[in-house]
Amino acid sequence: MDQKTILTKIALNGWQTQVDRATQFVNNLTDEELMKEVAPGKNRGIYLVGHLAAVHDALPEILGLGKRAYPDLQPVFLQAADKTIKQIPSASELRQIWTSVHDRLKNAFAEMPADAWFSRHDSMTDEDFEKDPARNKLSVLNTRTAHLAYHFGQLRLLK
Amino acid sequence: MDQKTILTKIALNGWQTQVDRATQFVNNLTDEELMKEVAPGKNRGIYLVGHLAAVHDALPEILGLGKRAYPDLQPVFLQAADKTIKQIPSASELRQIWTSVHDRLKNAFAEMPADAWFSRHDSMTDEDFEKDPARNKLSVLNTRTAHLAYHFGQLRLLK
Repeated sequence: MDQKTILTKIALNGWQTQVDRATQFVNNLTDEELMKEVAPGKNRGIYLVGHLAAVHDALPEILGLGKRAYPDLQPVFLQAADKTIKQIPSASELRQIWTSVHDRLKNAFAEMPADAWFSRHDSMTDEDFEKDPARNKLSVLNTRTAHLAYHFGQLRLLK
Repeated sequence: MDQKTILTKIALNGWQTQVDRATQFVNNLTDEELMKEVAPGKNRGIYLVGHLAAVHDALPEILGLGKRAYPDLQPVFLQAADKTIKQIPSASELRQIWTSVHDRLKNAFAEMPADAWFSRHDSMTDEDFEKDPARNKLSVLNTRTAHLAYHFGQLRLLK
C-alpha cells in the first residue's frame, strides 16, 4: 500500500468508527430519551442529532461531492440554538435523515480515489492551499471526526 | 512538502488543536467547577481531567518515546470509575500533571521525524502490522484525538 492509501485509510477508519458508534447509540435511544437535555439547561439529544446531520449533510459540498440533500436543516440546527425554534423535524424524520446522510457519505468515500483527499477543499483558494497544503480534504474529514466525537461524548450522557 | 510530512502535519494539527482547546478550558475552570459532575450522576470534571492525563501520559510508551511519568494515575483514573476511590490527586496537582504531560508530548512530537509516525505502534506485532499497515503510530494519535474530543465535549458542559 502506498502512503496516500494508508493515510486515507487511517482517516476514513477513524471517521467511520465514530459514525458507527454514534449511529448504534442513537438507534438504541428512544424518542423520549432523544427529547431530554444532555445536562440541565444544555442541548437536547434531538438537537445534537440534527446538528450532526446538518454538518455532515454539508460535507459533500466542501469535499466536491455534490450538493447537500437537506438544506432545511441548516437554519434549525446550525444557525439557531436549541429551544429557540418551535417547529423542528420529528425524531423519526431525523433518524431517516441520519441514515441517508451517512449512507451517502460512506458510498461516496468508498469511491473516492486516495489522491482526491490530498487536494484542496472547496472553501479555500488555490493561493491559500499553496501556502498550507495540509489544509486538504483529508484535514476536513479529521476535523469533522473530532467534531462528531465531541458531540457524541455529550449524547452518551443521555443513557 | 512530501506526502508523509503533510499527513503528519494534519494529524498533529488536529491533536494540538484539541489539546489547546481543552487546556484553555480547564485553565478557566475553578477548582469548585472541576468537582462538579458533567451531568447528574455522571463523571466529575476532575475525573475526566485525570482520565485524559492518564491516557496521554501513557502515549509515549505506545509511540516508543519513553516511559509514562505518572503511573499512579492509572489505577485511579483508568482502572477505577469515578467516585469509587476516595483519595485522588487534588485539582492543583492534576493541573500541574496536565501541563507537564502535554508539554512533554508537544516537545517529543516536534522532534519526531515524519517517517516514525508510519511505523507500527508498540502494542502490536510485526505480523499484524504487515497485514494492516494503517495501524501505525499516526492512527494511534488520531484515535487519541477523537477520545480527547469526546471527553472535552463532556467537560464543556461544566460551564
